[in-house]
Amino acid sequence: MELDFSNIKVVGFDADDTLWVNETYFREAEEKFADLLENYETKNKVDQELFKMEMNNLDLYGYGIKGFMLSMIESAMELSNNHVPPQTLTEILNLGKEMIAKPVELLQGVEEVLQKLSRKYRLIVLTKGDLLDQERKLERSGLTQYFHHVEVLSDKKEENYKNLLDHLEINVNEFLMIGNSLKSDVIPILNIGARAVHVPFHTTWAHEQVTIEEQTNNHLTLNEISDILKYLS
Amino acid sequence: MELDFSNIKVVGFDADDTLWVNETYFREAEEKFADLLENYETKNKVDQELFKMEMNNLDLYGYGIKGFMLSMIESAMELSNNHVPPQTLTEILNLGKEMIAKPVELLQGVEEVLQKLSRKYRLIVLTKGDLLDQERKLERSGLTQYFHHVEVLSDKKEENYKNLLDHLEINVNEFLMIGNSLKSDVIPILNIGARAVHVPFHTTWAHEQVTIEEQTNNHLTLNEISDILKYLS
Repeated sequence: MELDFSNIKVVGFDADDTLWVNETYFREAEEKFADLLENYETKNKVDQELFKMEMNNLDLYGYGIKGFMLSMIESAMELSNNHVPPQTLTEILNLGKEMIAKPVELLQGVEEVLQKLSRKYRLIVLTKGDLLDQERKLERSGLTQYFHHVEVLSDKKEENYKNLLDHLEINVNEFLMIGNSLKSDVIPILNIGARAVHVPFHTTWAHEQVTIEEQTNNHLTLNEISDILKYLS
Repeated sequence: MELDFSNIKVVGFDADDTLWVNETYFREAEEKFADLLENYETKNKVDQELFKMEMNNLDLYGYGIKGFMLSMIESAMELSNNHVPPQTLTEILNLGKEMIAKPVELLQGVEEVLQKLSRKYRLIVLTKGDLLDQERKLERSGLTQYFHHVEVLSDKKEENYKNLLDHLEINVNEFLMIGNSLKSDVIPILNIGARAVHVPFHTTWAHEQVTIEEQTNNHLTLNEISDILKYLS
């Protein structure tokens, strides 16, 4: 594990569950969704079917709340054998609208880390998901001032990162990514020859989970984001 | 009207209804949506209510097919007083999914224009809407090779354009925008001091329409995109 970060010039931050709470709100919405459908299926079955539906629709809809809403609607009709009353569908739409309108809750230590690191490094945000949603969250977060650049990507695969670093003229040797997802923020970054720090969030969406074999030892894992100040400062 | 484009270095293209057909598919989907709800309301009323719903939801959902799908679902429930059968909602979801999967149909002359202009100018795409959708359409269009940069914006107001030109280090005096929407591609561009060419598409979404007073004479209007070759070449 390379702990010498002396040549790092640019630090990239994931946003959802790295800078602010996100996954928690999806889990809460899933709970409420299962409650709304309790007449038709067990909570466990509803969870499974919704996840399956999201995965089926992922290529079409991509990441974000609107796709999640459409998958909830479609699941509700399927799970109820088309017996779900429109009132329930209205409640499902409201669940999604509430998620979009939620205030942004910063994770502990984030503001201090950005304040300190922005004095020495060029900081950028690299997030995936819905463009409008992510722009809105960043604005609500009050963190915009710390970032030189914000990029919302449709996905976080090696190719997406490579293109972006090229476009921003960032040398892979000088780039460090910080994020909560091994799959999206760490593994592809290491694969393109840059460095990555993993700061796990207590909840990980099933789609972002990786198996043991996919895990890697070539990155630093931190308990909380402030710990990065011991390595970069 | 300034027809001397001799100092132009960068040409920006809108995408939907400038490079390829888009609005037509929305109009077709609206027709089918009205047919699905003909038991509840007249076509005219359904159209009006759907548009109202889209405008109510625009701040939350932004532009794009997923927001349109969610607004159709919500309108269907409202217009039917919650009597719409789930089968109809499934058909509405399918309408939207078909739109997302549609092949890209280039407008006449587009490829030739890009081929010729790309020899002399830096070409960029500036589109608004859903990130994944727009990336996918560009890829399917086969036009990627002609562009130095592609930017999907959450909106096309003066502020969005200013930030982007700043970020790409493009001088407003050297920038020309080509697009089908006076509201999104022409007026804000003229307001920031750059130049704009209007190439109307036969169909304009009500939200993109401008009143006579908002119209401007400081831009060139062309019948079809190939006509630009008489001015830039």
